[in-house]
Amino acid sequence: MLPDYQLLRIPGPTPIPPSVQRAMSQPMVGHRSASFQELLSRVAPRLKPLFGTKQDVLILTGSGTLALEAAVVNALDEGEAALVLVTGAFGDRFRKMCQTYGLDTYVIESEWGRAFDVEEVENFLRQHPHIKAVFATYCETSTAVLNPIWELAKVIQQNSDALFIVDAVSCLGAVETKMDEWGIDILVTGSQKALMLPAGLAFAAISEKGWHKVQHNRRPRFYLDLSRYQQSLSDHATPFTPAVSLVMGLEQALNLIEEEGLEQVIKRHQVLKEMTRQAFKALSLPLLTSDKDASPTVTAVRPSQFKADDLRSLLRKKFGLTLAGGQQKLKGEIFRVGHMGYCSPLDVLQTIAAIEVGLKQLGMEIKLGQGTQAAEEVLIHDL
Amino acid sequence: MLPDYQLLRIPGPTPIPPSVQRAMSQPMVGHRSASFQELLSRVAPRLKPLFGTKQDVLILTGSGTLALEAAVVNALDEGEAALVLVTGAFGDRFRKMCQTYGLDTYVIESEWGRAFDVEEVENFLRQHPHIKAVFATYCETSTAVLNPIWELAKVIQQNSDALFIVDAVSCLGAVETKMDEWGIDILVTGSQKALMLPAGLAFAAISEKGWHKVQHNRRPRFYLDLSRYQQSLSDHATPFTPAVSLVMGLEQALNLIEEEGLEQVIKRHQVLKEMTRQAFKALSLPLLTSDKDASPTVTAVRPSQFKADDLRSLLRKKFGLTLAGGQQKLKGEIFRVGHMGYCSPLDVLQTIAAIEVGLKQLGMEIKLGQGTQAAEEVLIHDL
Repeated sequence: MLPDYQLLRIPGPTPIPPSVQRAMSQPMVGHRSASFQELLSRVAPRLKPLFGTKQDVLILTGSGTLALEAAVVNALDEGEAALVLVTGAFGDRFRKMCQTYGLDTYVIESEWGRAFDVEEVENFLRQHPHIKAVFATYCETSTAVLNPIWELAKVIQQNSDALFIVDAVSCLGAVETKMDEWGIDILVTGSQKALMLPAGLAFAAISEKGWHKVQHNRRPRFYLDLSRYQQSLSDHATPFTPAVSLVMGLEQALNLIEEEGLEQVIKRHQVLKEMTRQAFKALSLPLLTSDKDASPTVTAVRPSQFKADDLRSLLRKKFGLTLAGGQQKLKGEIFRVGHMGYCSPLDVLQTIAAIEVGLKQLGMEIKLGQGTQAAEEVLIHDL
Repeated sequence: MLPDYQLLRIPGPTPIPPSVQRAMSQPMVGHRSASFQELLSRVAPRLKPLFGTKQDVLILTGSGTLALEAAVVNALDEGEAALVLVTGAFGDRFRKMCQTYGLDTYVIESEWGRAFDVEEVENFLRQHPHIKAVFATYCETSTAVLNPIWELAKVIQQNSDALFIVDAVSCLGAVETKMDEWGIDILVTGSQKALMLPAGLAFAAISEKGWHKVQHNRRPRFYLDLSRYQQSLSDHATPFTPAVSLVMGLEQALNLIEEEGLEQVIKRHQVLKEMTRQAFKALSLPLLTSDKDASPTVTAVRPSQFKADDLRSLLRKKFGLTLAGGQQKLKGEIFRVGHMGYCSPLDVLQTIAAIEVGLKQLGMEIKLGQGTQAAEEVLIHDL
């Protein structure tokens, strides 16, 4: 194998664009300096279109989980009732957090690989008017499902007073997200997915309704206290020491997104999804999710003729190509291809061709080039 | 197009491995410091296996052309007779240099796209015993030809007293090179090809016979005086200010070559060549060179159904993929794919798949995936 060669095709962390890498290599500055204040005041407003909100987007230093937890502890006090929609490992993480913090936690779990059933949630909410918040995962990374957040938002508004709290870690910046228009109350994400940065920054935006609840919530919190972040932001600052170099990188990542145009970024991810799915279909590999439920940022395959981890291991050892495996219930059952952020259609072509070689090496009877051909057809159709 | 995305598939400069990039970003040191002396003394001997020589490999700061010129001015005095074998633009550069420096210059030019004819050279040398040096290009980058240097070396030794001076800029480190065993007298190369560095360093090694001639050559030279470089090298130094960061990068590039193993590096380039050629054959694209004459580092295609530069332009604009065009006589006639240095088989698969998409966009009637399939078959056969 060619040394020092690696292709990272997992659903986060994702590859870093060279110009973002360079931006992060700028000389360090103090986080209370005018220079950093200016950087922050340039960067923060530019996150709003990605969230689809006019609200402030708060910048926390921590992983995506920190923002998930911030949503839980800021929105809900002990004993309050919450509904968690579990469609995979990250929905399940919300469940664990709610239980950890002593919430009266209700769970609706879908079969892993499927989106939640909006009607089922609607019925549940009608029967449980005391629910104070609904937690859902936009892209469930572990199953490659994009949940219909836009539909659920409508249903919640029509049937409940509950806050709608959404984890968009593995898709925000790659899929249409209209927080204000749809009616999401707390929307959180992380830096290491479609935002093309290393992990280390988390982001949260809160609706007016959300802020009202947050400000009246007496649960103790300090580092996770989102009000502090909002207050600091109005002074172009962060309440605690921020990951300065990542904020430098964020500015360049936003430059790239704006240069391509958010609409085109979203369209590109649709093409990447379609290329990947058509390729796997052409190779007769069973997809975990239906076309309707599929995420534009990650695709999961549940092979029946070989072990998913054998393919992953072969591709990593022979070619330095890393795919993701399954998590929890799906461990060993699936492999996942990430195609978000700094990912070109040519990267998908390369990944598919490499997988074809890997499948042949595993003794599968496939026609070489057939998946690549299908992916190329999608790309050409879109050009 | 995805901004800040580029794939460089030209025959040099070639992509830089991340670890080499990092090595070049080390803090600057003085070129007369103990630290740089130690670096130079670690690095210089490790170039010898790549040249296939026990002689010193001299490190010059400049582009490959500097080393070519150094060979001319060190080996030959005004009025001496030289034979230049021109198989393309870089052979022609040797011709121009020889004429510039007032040598009695003889030229045997082959059809561009073909290797030189060893028998023809043999006959010429028998009839011209006063030839003092034969200049040849190992890989003629402009036509993607690998000339049979090993055969010619034998013929020169049997028929002449001439020095054998070889330009190996676009292949040394990627193809078998046995300077001592074959009998090359001056062998030169540059940093930006198979050595995986930016341009800026040039390298030269000289046989005992070559040194004898060089030391007795009274032609004036200063920066290009190779004797100065040899003398300095014995003091772990360079005669003039060297490109320090490139030497730092060179150490890591050599680490990578040694980690993979030179034999495997050479084998990988054979596979890259074979993958590329079989793909183009499967797509019915006319190759400029025969199988026998083809270089493992670059492949040239002479399309008849579309303009080479249209394909290049389309791939660059739509996908950020850069292929090389033709030079001089072949301008507009060919496109060239570089596959040397930091190039994985997966990079070839990606390039071929992208070219398929490009061909279709140009309205060519090809079967998508067919070239990729052929390349995959070569790769699988070799795994």
